Parts: sequence; C-alpha cells; structure tokens
Amino acid sequence: MPQQNTTSTSVFEQAYWQIAAVDSACLPSIDERINNKTKPLGALGQLEDLARQLAQIQHPAPKESKPIEINRPVMLVFAADHGIAAHNISIAPPEVTQQMVLNFLNGGAAINCFSSTLGWKMKVIDAGMLSPIDQIARASASDMLIEQPMGTGTADFSTQAAMTQDQAEQALLMGAKVAKEQITQGSNVLAFGEMGIGNTSSASALLSLICGLSPERTTGKGTGISDDQLANKVQLITDALERVKNTHGTKAFTPQTALAEVGGFEIAQIIGAMLASAQAGKSILVDGFIVSVAALFATRIAPKAQDYMLFAHCSAEHAHQQVLAQLDARPLLSLGLRLGEGTGAALALPLLQAAASFYNDMASFESAGVTV
Amino acid sequence: MPQQNTTSTSVFEQAYWQIAAVDSACLPSIDERINNKTKPLGALGQLEDLARQLAQIQHPAPKESKPIEINRPVMLVFAADHGIAAHNISIAPPEVTQQMVLNFLNGGAAINCFSSTLGWKMKVIDAGMLSPIDQIARASASDMLIEQPMGTGTADFSTQAAMTQDQAEQALLMGAKVAKEQITQGSNVLAFGEMGIGNTSSASALLSLICGLSPERTTGKGTGISDDQLANKVQLITDALERVKNTHGTKAFTPQTALAEVGGFEIAQIIGAMLASAQAGKSILVDGFIVSVAALFATRIAPKAQDYMLFAHCSAEHAHQQVLAQLDARPLLSLGLRLGEGTGAALALPLLQAAASFYNDMASFESAGVTV
Repeated sequence: MPQQNTTSTSVFEQAYWQIAAVDSACLPSIDERINNKTKPLGALGQLEDLARQLAQIQHPAPKESKPIEINRPVMLVFAADHGIAAHNISIAPPEVTQQMVLNFLNGGAAINCFSSTLGWKMKVIDAGMLSPIDQIARASASDMLIEQPMGTGTADFSTQAAMTQDQAEQALLMGAKVAKEQITQGSNVLAFGEMGIGNTSSASALLSLICGLSPERTTGKGTGISDDQLANKVQLITDALERVKNTHGTKAFTPQTALAEVGGFEIAQIIGAMLASAQAGKSILVDGFIVSVAALFATRIAPKAQDYMLFAHCSAEHAHQQVLAQLDARPLLSLGLRLGEGTGAALALPLLQAAASFYNDMASFESAGVTV
Repeated sequence: MPQQNTTSTSVFEQAYWQIAAVDSACLPSIDERINNKTKPLGALGQLEDLARQLAQIQHPAPKESKPIEINRPVMLVFAADHGIAAHNISIAPPEVTQQMVLNFLNGGAAINCFSSTLGWKMKVIDAGMLSPIDQIARASASDMLIEQPMGTGTADFSTQAAMTQDQAEQALLMGAKVAKEQITQGSNVLAFGEMGIGNTSSASALLSLICGLSPERTTGKGTGISDDQLANKVQLITDALERVKNTHGTKAFTPQTALAEVGGFEIAQIIGAMLASAQAGKSILVDGFIVSVAALFATRIAPKAQDYMLFAHCSAEHAHQQVLAQLDARPLLSLGLRLGEGTGAALALPLLQAAASFYNDMASFESAGVTV
C-alpha cells in the first residue's frame, strides 16, 4: 500500500500521492545538450520534445547531463467487466473479456505480438472480470497474470452506481500496488492497456461527468457498433447522467463520485497505477481513449501527474480528441487504431528509445567538427 | 549493371526495369487472414494496410498464406553536393555535406543513433561530393562507405544544366547497383536517406518541372533558412525554370530532362536504387521531401514501382504534402521532422515489424476460442 500519509488522507486527494512536479530549472542544460547535436535547431520535431520530457523526468537536478534510460518497459493490461454491457452496446458479448484475457495469457493477441516484437514486459491484471481465470490457465501463465478483482464486474450504471465509494478507493490502491511492484523490479516506463467489453461506455460517461460534456460528444462506436447500438449507448449514458445528477445534484462531480457512479474496475486500477508511477518519478505511456480518460482522472486528482505522462496514440474513437484537448496533449502516433489492449502505447516505445539514443549518443557540432 | 535488355532501351524507360505489378489476386486470402485475427474488423488501422501491402509484395501467388519477413533492413544514405548551394540558400555552407558524411562514418549523426537502436544496417554512398572522403576516414569506415561519385557536385542549375544526360543515366545505374548488392546480401526492405547542402532546392525545382507547379508552392525553408534566403531560393528556382523552358520549350518535361537540368547526383542515384528494388520485388521505405521527390520520379519512369513503396513520414517541409498528394500516399508517421538523412524512414521500421508480427503470429478467432 502506498501509505506514507496519515490514514485520514483519501487516495482521491492530491496530498495522498505527494507527486513532485518536474523541475524546469534543468531545462536550460537539457536544451543546450539537444541544441548542440549535429542537426539544425528543432529538426527532430516531436522527438526533441520527447527527449526533453524524458530527461526532465529522469534528471530533475539542474546542470546534470546524464543519459536517458529506458529500463524494463512494462505493459500493464487491466481487464474487467461492466454491468452496462448487458444492454448489447458492444460488438461482442461480455464473455469475450475473459476469452481475450485467455488469449493474452496464451500470447495470441495483438498486444502480445507488439510487446514481444518491440520489447515490452507484459502483465495482465484481472481487476474484476465476471468470472476468474481457471486454474489451468492460471498455472500456465503465472508470470503474466496478476489477480486482484474488485468484484465480478461493475453494476449496470444506467440504473445504479457501478461500484461503492470504498471499491473505488480500494481499486486505486490495488492499481498503485501493481505499478510499485513493477517499479521495484526496475521498470522506469510503464504503459497501460485495457480490456473490458462495455468499457468505452464507462469511459464516455466518466468524461461527460467530469467535463460536463453531452453524451453525444463523448460517445462513439467503440470497436465498431451499429448506428442503432450507438443511439442506445448514448441513451443509456444520458439516463446514467440523469440518475447521477438526481442523486448528487448538478454540481461539478469529484473524480471519486464519478468513478463510483459510472466507472470501471480496470479504469480505477489504471488511475491508481498512474498516480503511483508519477509518485515514483517514472514515465507513464498513455494509450487510447479509455486509458486517456484514466489519465485525465489521475490529473484531476493530482495535476502534477501529467508531468510524467507521454501520449502515445490518437485513437479513431472521436471522443479521444476531447480527452486530449482537456489534457492539451499531442500524441506521437495517429494510425487509426481502435483496439485498446495498450496497442497504441506499445507501438510508441521505439520512439522513446530513438529519442533516448539521439539525446545520449549523437555527436555535438564540436565533437564532430561540423561547421555551425 | 541491371542490364537484361537490349542496350537500346534507356534507363529512363519503363521497359528497361521490367517491374511486375503486385498481384491483386492474392488479396482475398490476405484479407481473410487479417480479418480472422482476434480483433474487430479494421481495428489495427494503418497497420492493417501496411501488413496487406507487405504480404502482397512478398507473396504474389494467390492462396498462399506465408509469413511476412523483414530481413536485413538496410538504410542507404546518398550524399552529394549542389552547385546551387554557392548562393547561400541553406543554413550551412557546402563543406558541411562532407563533414556530415564523416559524422555518419564515425557513428555520430541522428541516423546512426536511430539505425543502431532500431536495427538498420546502414550504408553511406558518396554520389558526388565536392571532395572525396580522405583515406584515413575511408579506411576506418570501409564497411559503411560506398564511393561512386558522378562528379564533384552538380553545376549551378540557376544558370546551366546541373549534369549531362549521360551523367543522369549513369547515376540511375550506379544507384541500382547499390540496391542490388544489398538485395544480394539478403535485404528485403530498403530505405533511402540523403545528405547534400542545397538539395531541397534541387528537389523543389524537380517537383516544379515535373508537375508544373510554381516555385512558391514547391519551395520551403528546408532545415531552417531566413525569409530573405527563402525569397532568394524561390528566385533562383524561378530563374532555373525559365532557363529550362527556353532550352526545351514549355512542353511537359521528361524525368530525364528534369533530372539533368535541375537534379542532384544523390537524388538520381536514389531513383535508380528504388527502381532496382522494385524490379527485385523488394519493399522501398520512403523518407521525407527529397526522397519522396526521388520516389515520384521513379514512378514517372515506371509507375508500377509504387506498388513497392511504403511512405514512412510526413516532413515539416510543406512541399512534401504536394509530393504525397501526387503519389496519393499517406505516411505512417508525422513527427515534424525536417532533418533528412533517412531519419523519418528509420523510425518507421518498428511499425513494419509490428505489422509483420500481428500478421504472422496473432491468433485467429477459432484458434483462440473467442466468440465472434
């Protein structure tokens, strides 16, 4: 448990996490290093911004000029089920969450292919699926699977709270625990993915609640539902917002209230894992729509967490643009992915490695004898 | 020499290269393979298009379903000097071409960092620099350097033809030779980069001539010149176009005429290397503005060459959009790079590897037991 504070501080309070902002005092020395490389000023575009942010995260002390390290990058895929999925607002039935988790454990999914090709460690976390992984699969995948379910899926948020406030709080702590374990094992870049039939509905509802956006603006076709299903999805989220406003009044909703009312167990654990990563000063690689909503919530709890966030990918889900706008974030990739699992984040790792390599190893004008 | 034809066929004729179009008869089996993977239809976006194209290039026979291979990817960086550079229309003086080539040979440039981090073999080709690499550098970098200069830089194209028609023809053959050597050594993905102070001026003039676009639309700030330098650059290209039209009339210009009048030795060798790669059925990874102009010329000589081209990166040089529009190409990355050297192409290799990995190794719905 990431407890360094008095027990009276909630995990939904900034004070709990004690996240240090990255120090801008180190920027002049970082910029000097980048600008003396044998290339025109700014000619490496977004890779320069990426190197700058990685260096700032890793070397907060000004005047140091140490290499950027990418150590044991780990992809954490959180899976959970959603009561809202009973309404047929996804392209697949709820049992596919567990089937896909088995697929992860067997190495057969897109995220497995990308992780092994690009060099990610991969962990799959059961944050609350309808039914647990059976013993055989568990035994064969003991190294990849982490089981810490908060329940057997959330309740149907169109008619009742998805989870209790206590579950939301515990989920953040459990997510934080996973991140801390990976950091202890040497990871300094943590990426987040998700699997959960129905979880774009939860993400859309969360975004609507926390930003006051209409469901029409936050809801999309996910992995490819029909127009009728989309209309139904929007209506269910509209009903949920109505229910929540009747319960809590129309005031701005706190992250805790929003998460308990319309959230998901995997989303909640991701929020906690991100906050723990930032607390430990490690880089957070943010995937698509759902993970970005988790990132938005993490920054609403502790704004300084954003200093540690790198945005990997712009999803084909249009509401992702809304989330990115809220965070003023410009992702590295835009490949039209709409799969989740962390696939967008996985693909961005080589860009981090390339940024580190030019920052660390590229010659300066002086050392290369190139005329400025 | 890639001579399989009668000597009467020019290298500027499609017939010389005998490039086979990729066969669309294999597409149904490729699409079936992709669509049965455990993911929603189309959910991997541009990576699916990439896998489709790679599979089509590598397995032309229909009904085959073999894995995609990425073998010994090689980055070929062609360097040459340009007479036009005497007019101070670049951020650096002409001697920087050779200094940067020495930097390549010493492993100190951005393209070295990206190549070693991401797994490229790298070759540097002197296609016609002002002065050759000295013996000491040559001896220490014998494995990386290929010397086949067409001269000591081109003539100043604002007042005379950059090269002779014969030089243009020989340059294509010499470029083809390099590609063929690499293919013989096992490379099936060839990427192209360039280094040459003044070569955006040449690329802009080539684009203007071949597409009938005004110099204002094809000319930009390259790696970062001033407004005055840009105005001068546009004027020099305008003068060149005037000169060429006076010499040849205002008819549409052939690739050969355009290349001899305003081209560069590195650009010409790249065109030949691309054509030889397509002839051998290998994948061509296209970098930024200058390399894309070479790609456009290759397709104007042999349109089927485009079947083998993968577009890596959209450059910050605005005229790159014009070239991409001519080729109806949508690059994989858009990171604001404006460096050349092949850096944009280098960064795209992991995406090719990721596309191959999901195409080769991802489970089908049936094999994974996932409900469709």
